[in-house]
Amino acid sequence: MPVLAGGLLAALTVAFGTAVAFAPKPRITWEHREVQLLRFHEPGIYNYSALLLSEDQGTLYIGAREAVFAVNALNVSEKQHEVYWRVSEGKRAKCAEKGKSKQTECLNYIRVLQPLSATALYVCGTNAFQPTCDHLNLTSFTFLGRNEDGKGRCPFDPAHSYTSVMVDGELYTGTSYNFLGSEPVISRSSAHSPLRTEYAIPWLNEPKFVFADVIRKSPAEGEDDRVYFFFTEVSVEYEFVFRLQIPRIARVCKGDQGGLRTLQKKWTSFLKAKLICSRRDGSLVFNVLRDVFVLRAPDLKAPVFYALFAPQLNNVGLSAVCAYDLSTAEDVFSHGKYMQSATVEHSHTKWVRYNGPVPRPRPGACIDSETRAANYTSSLNLPDKTLQFVKDHPLMDGSVMPVDNRPRLVKKDVNYTQIVVDRTRALDGTAYDVMFVSTDQGALHKAVSLENTVHLIEETQLFQDFEPVQTLVLSSKKGWGSVYAGSRSGVVQAPLAFCGKHGSCEDCVLARDPYCVWSPSAAACVALPQAEGDARGLIQDMRGDTSVCPAWPPKPSPPPGSSSLSCPGPAAPSS
Amino acid sequence: MPVLAGGLLAALTVAFGTAVAFAPKPRITWEHREVQLLRFHEPGIYNYSALLLSEDQGTLYIGAREAVFAVNALNVSEKQHEVYWRVSEGKRAKCAEKGKSKQTECLNYIRVLQPLSATALYVCGTNAFQPTCDHLNLTSFTFLGRNEDGKGRCPFDPAHSYTSVMVDGELYTGTSYNFLGSEPVISRSSAHSPLRTEYAIPWLNEPKFVFADVIRKSPAEGEDDRVYFFFTEVSVEYEFVFRLQIPRIARVCKGDQGGLRTLQKKWTSFLKAKLICSRRDGSLVFNVLRDVFVLRAPDLKAPVFYALFAPQLNNVGLSAVCAYDLSTAEDVFSHGKYMQSATVEHSHTKWVRYNGPVPRPRPGACIDSETRAANYTSSLNLPDKTLQFVKDHPLMDGSVMPVDNRPRLVKKDVNYTQIVVDRTRALDGTAYDVMFVSTDQGALHKAVSLENTVHLIEETQLFQDFEPVQTLVLSSKKGWGSVYAGSRSGVVQAPLAFCGKHGSCEDCVLARDPYCVWSPSAAACVALPQAEGDARGLIQDMRGDTSVCPAWPPKPSPPPGSSSLSCPGPAAPSS
Repeated sequence: MPVLAGGLLAALTVAFGTAVAFAPKPRITWEHREVQLLRFHEPGIYNYSALLLSEDQGTLYIGAREAVFAVNALNVSEKQHEVYWRVSEGKRAKCAEKGKSKQTECLNYIRVLQPLSATALYVCGTNAFQPTCDHLNLTSFTFLGRNEDGKGRCPFDPAHSYTSVMVDGELYTGTSYNFLGSEPVISRSSAHSPLRTEYAIPWLNEPKFVFADVIRKSPAEGEDDRVYFFFTEVSVEYEFVFRLQIPRIARVCKGDQGGLRTLQKKWTSFLKAKLICSRRDGSLVFNVLRDVFVLRAPDLKAPVFYALFAPQLNNVGLSAVCAYDLSTAEDVFSHGKYMQSATVEHSHTKWVRYNGPVPRPRPGACIDSETRAANYTSSLNLPDKTLQFVKDHPLMDGSVMPVDNRPRLVKKDVNYTQIVVDRTRALDGTAYDVMFVSTDQGALHKAVSLENTVHLIEETQLFQDFEPVQTLVLSSKKGWGSVYAGSRSGVVQAPLAFCGKHGSCEDCVLARDPYCVWSPSAAACVALPQAEGDARGLIQDMRGDTSVCPAWPPKPSPPPGSSSLSCPGPAAPSS
Repeated sequence: MPVLAGGLLAALTVAFGTAVAFAPKPRITWEHREVQLLRFHEPGIYNYSALLLSEDQGTLYIGAREAVFAVNALNVSEKQHEVYWRVSEGKRAKCAEKGKSKQTECLNYIRVLQPLSATALYVCGTNAFQPTCDHLNLTSFTFLGRNEDGKGRCPFDPAHSYTSVMVDGELYTGTSYNFLGSEPVISRSSAHSPLRTEYAIPWLNEPKFVFADVIRKSPAEGEDDRVYFFFTEVSVEYEFVFRLQIPRIARVCKGDQGGLRTLQKKWTSFLKAKLICSRRDGSLVFNVLRDVFVLRAPDLKAPVFYALFAPQLNNVGLSAVCAYDLSTAEDVFSHGKYMQSATVEHSHTKWVRYNGPVPRPRPGACIDSETRAANYTSSLNLPDKTLQFVKDHPLMDGSVMPVDNRPRLVKKDVNYTQIVVDRTRALDGTAYDVMFVSTDQGALHKAVSLENTVHLIEETQLFQDFEPVQTLVLSSKKGWGSVYAGSRSGVVQAPLAFCGKHGSCEDCVLARDPYCVWSPSAAACVALPQAEGDARGLIQDMRGDTSVCPAWPPKPSPPPGSSSLSCPGPAAPSS
């Protein structure tokens, strides 16, 4: 039986003097045993944390500890291929000599799993603190044995943060560059133009990398593609009793070639800004990034970044989601003021807004048609003044504010770990961004924003053992949409909705799930058909108004095991 | 029936990645109807927020809205005297003309209720935004009608913060000086030497005053008495996404006469420092002061300040108590470094540690025998250099750290409002500091520190309507110890313990209440007698080990309405 909790409206918790509205409890909770989820797990193999979905091939690639698998994306329990990449005994012994645990740390954790071509993946692993990369041939499902040095592409330590994205065959990564993990780097591995960040506090200050992705620009407008990085680092601009963390968005330009003298083999286009995710009254400040998802949809002019946060201070189980328009971030980078550091009383550094003259071309800007028209065709021939300025001023003064200047979701008593977002159309054609958010207790929350409130449609217990969800991947392919979740013990595949579990029209409507409609002809709650012609006679009401249901139908008896909710709508027979 | 919750050990809540230990739930909860508490309430009178206890006279004075009462301290329901101080209709109309509410704000809220002599109290009220003070003759219980201007002694607005303490017939106050409440001041009202703070951000930056008290020094050592002020203000030294609050302790010297030219009629001894109340790992930072209590006891070398805090950021129901040794604060003021402000890039101010030379006599120090030996007999003849320095550097660099460098109590899902602390001896002679902490829901928590843990002995619902407790006063007079709690609706008197409600030796021992012992001869749980000779045969064990109880006694049947706890000790008959 599903557990019913919360009401139609968001719960109101009155903090001392301040009313703070939190998302309600999930309306329905599906226990693990209630939902038959597909699962992949290979005996003896752990840490299924790298997931890569190929919708074209219908394959989910899974990077685990010392192994890579290919499974059927329609049914993850069907293994298609496997290949092992184990650390040699000699290497493990050497790693253990350096004081690392032979049983846990001195193994090969797959950290990079990126598409290289239609027939090959690029794979990197920690390899007993000797990060190494290789090509995985997808036809034979064997490694080519290239044994590339993975330094700067993959962390040495499996406990360290990392992120990567493959762009036109070149790998962009954020990770640490050395054994100790003390030298952070954002770099591009490229045969013809490898680039990296300066090793300096103003560039990266103990960052924890969370996410990276490329945003393509229209070539017609002569604009360069950008690669965005998301991380949390130690703030240089803020101070409190303890060191403050600050969430950042950074970006580099794909066409960057580095400088000729100044910033040689370094990014000339590295700029970063702070992300704000707070309640307007300042009572809640979320400054630790957990995950980011880029939502792209045909009806969205530009991608939207969905970011998952926790607070650093006084976090006794608080999580939030903020959404950011790409244009807001671009605006800060392209037109905002810079920050600069000043020395106070010989020994203190304070970062303040820089109000002085800014050299031309604009420091950190991508080379575009305008720059080219001024005869700067490459970063290699940018003037030293511009390069020196961006070297000293990588931090923007402006903040990247969230959409509507507030979090889209704030939840108490939960620690969210990962987020994916699906944009879907309800029966009436309205588009909804459905947030799938995983917890550190193995659950998945499905939430949707409805006029001034957030509706937590349902909670699904993905993992029986309440283990933290480490990775989430979304397949929004029409007809077989799924969420894939990786954890220490395996990978679970969950459908986007459990429409069939709602046994009556009232239950189906009260679920307020944009994926589900009541079909009077089938007398069942079914997935909303994608073809528009099929919608005739179907019933859905995202306000949860059950008066849309047939007034007094011969109520079909619910199938065994289906949900039975005691929350009567206005016209529910039981009311 | 009391509600039993929590175990013998502090509950452990695992926050995301960090284990944070919180105080457990109260072991016993006494509902309002279970405890017959004495109560005072005068029909039509509200806001019983000013309480003053005279243990000598056995009288509790109560300042409410437009009235002052004297009640029997042994039984607050026995009214001894009453006097009304109402705002005239003309004044109320004038106040309403200024945009204030005639029904609520334009009344006379008693804010200062201080002993002036054995036969008089000093009373100030907001008086429809025209703060006024008067003398209350205790013999006739009538006001003398002195109609003194209360500006600087009492706030204009009943919603504004205030604190005051009477020292040798002179009133020391922290409040706002004007109608708008925008000019904060810490002042001394004195016929011969009135003093106040400079109106400048470095001195007071939007403070919320919480508490003030005098600490006497031994005259034999030639040292001056000090008056301490506690408040929360906007931090100048820290910055975050939103303005940060910072809790402060400030002190002035009683003998201060102000400067002759510089700091004329201003404090020459005003220094302030930040109070730290945080978890060592920085995950919890409590930076909003709620209340302070000064614990004095014969076996304590110096008073201990108990301070109640909430966090400013992400506070979804967190409270903490930190204790501070007077010597720690004195050390920061007497030997610590000062902070100074520096201007950065023309428009920003940053406060940093001042490392330059400090003039002699030490700026802000009280005039003591050493200063007098150097011929500075009064603040009036302190050199300009010292005065100018303290005018510019009122903020100390050092932090006042709590005892053991950590909170004494951290509680989740509660908003504490007030604190009083009683130091009492258990049967074995060990001294315990028993904290009585009120909540914004009308409850009182009684907690005691036991080796590495906090034991929440009990929760008592003082007010039926769950209204916030606004004031707490402790009477620790042996024999009739009580806690008096003031709220909007009235005053409640609660005993320090409910020993008689524990029906068996096991229940009495498991309560781990230092006030309660099991008397085998009386076959009852009774208050620990204060005379040492009476202790023979009595049973108590602060570890809650019930094996100290008689092995298999003929168990007396519990009196009706007494507590019956299902938590068996090692030797409990039911185990």
